[in-house]
Amino acid sequence: MIPDPAAPAEPGLFLSFEGGDGAGKTTQQAHLAAWLTESFGREVVRTREPGGTELGRTLRQLVLHGDDVDARTEALLYATDRAHHVASLVRPALGRGAVVITDRYLDSSLAYQAGGRELGLAELRDLQMWAVGGLLPRMTFLLDLDPALLPQRLTGSPDRLERAGAEFHRRTRDAFLALAAAEPQRWRVLDASLPIEELAARIRAEVAPLLAPSGGVPA
Amino acid sequence: MIPDPAAPAEPGLFLSFEGGDGAGKTTQQAHLAAWLTESFGREVVRTREPGGTELGRTLRQLVLHGDDVDARTEALLYATDRAHHVASLVRPALGRGAVVITDRYLDSSLAYQAGGRELGLAELRDLQMWAVGGLLPRMTFLLDLDPALLPQRLTGSPDRLERAGAEFHRRTRDAFLALAAAEPQRWRVLDASLPIEELAARIRAEVAPLLAPSGGVPA
Repeated sequence: MIPDPAAPAEPGLFLSFEGGDGAGKTTQQAHLAAWLTESFGREVVRTREPGGTELGRTLRQLVLHGDDVDARTEALLYATDRAHHVASLVRPALGRGAVVITDRYLDSSLAYQAGGRELGLAELRDLQMWAVGGLLPRMTFLLDLDPALLPQRLTGSPDRLERAGAEFHRRTRDAFLALAAAEPQRWRVLDASLPIEELAARIRAEVAPLLAPSGGVPA
Repeated sequence: MIPDPAAPAEPGLFLSFEGGDGAGKTTQQAHLAAWLTESFGREVVRTREPGGTELGRTLRQLVLHGDDVDARTEALLYATDRAHHVASLVRPALGRGAVVITDRYLDSSLAYQAGGRELGLAELRDLQMWAVGGLLPRMTFLLDLDPALLPQRLTGSPDRLERAGAEFHRRTRDAFLALAAAEPQRWRVLDASLPIEELAARIRAEVAPLLAPSGGVPA
């Protein structure tokens, strides 16, 4: 078989889930991992950012409890966590042929931070890409949820804080959609309001074609 | 008075000491600070990298105790410490007109890390300059010590580890000297084997002309 020149150097498969909190990323990560293990016998590494490593968990605490951390320091804390995560966990797993599924990756930093006032998307992307030595997922699933649907679930009218939260969710969602639109070959945008099983089936249908060239064969 | 277009935006004065461990940086920092306070009534902030802030001290522990941290993660840990140090301590102090004297700054990262195998000087400099938003010291003192002098202080011949240490010190010294040669307007290279008082006098002679335009007047 002629090797695909576009294929990554590692024999494994790198996948990521992105989207807002509560979109179902952890649930879909678990469904996909179970299917890959049971149906293909693949080693699957489930991980997350930030905090996928021990050093990362310390850095995560610094981000969460650092009230007045400026934008550059925050971007660098995430980049440090990510660099260590990739070097110590993701690359070694890909190197031995595993499927690595991460709950959030560098796109989260871009979506959440580039909307801010201080830092531009291009410099944030350069920083994060440098941190990971250019490693991008083969496929990224955006579990997309319209935040306009959320207030309907509330009883009564939203207060000021809830409205500010809704505005934040709207901005983040728009940022994710823009990232996906800019790289359609890597991203798959899925409606996160679908039933869990239907969503899982759509994700399986996208991943299945990626398995054979990596050496995985159906059981 | 016509403002100097090359002058920094901050009314304060930013100085740094660089050089190997044991070259006398802390001692000279203390001498200079005492002179600035006593003779000019200037507010002086003495600080250090890594670990000049509380977040920085945590990051410093991560560097020191992380045995198998890869080169990118290490560079990012230092950059994160530095970004927070500059944003939360250095810039505010310069903004209120203080003299900030730091024991090590980004040149230390360049001298110690660029000699390594993995990362180039240009990418390290880009990272560190981004972390500090382009802030460089007005003047940097390299306390230069020839490591070849060190073995003469030992009795007997150096063992393998001591020779490896000497080789490391030689590489770091060469890196500092190269950085200084590339930016002669910022760096002052001083012979760290001089008597403490003579060295202090030479540093005072370099700093004195920088004080008047910043608003400081001799008492």
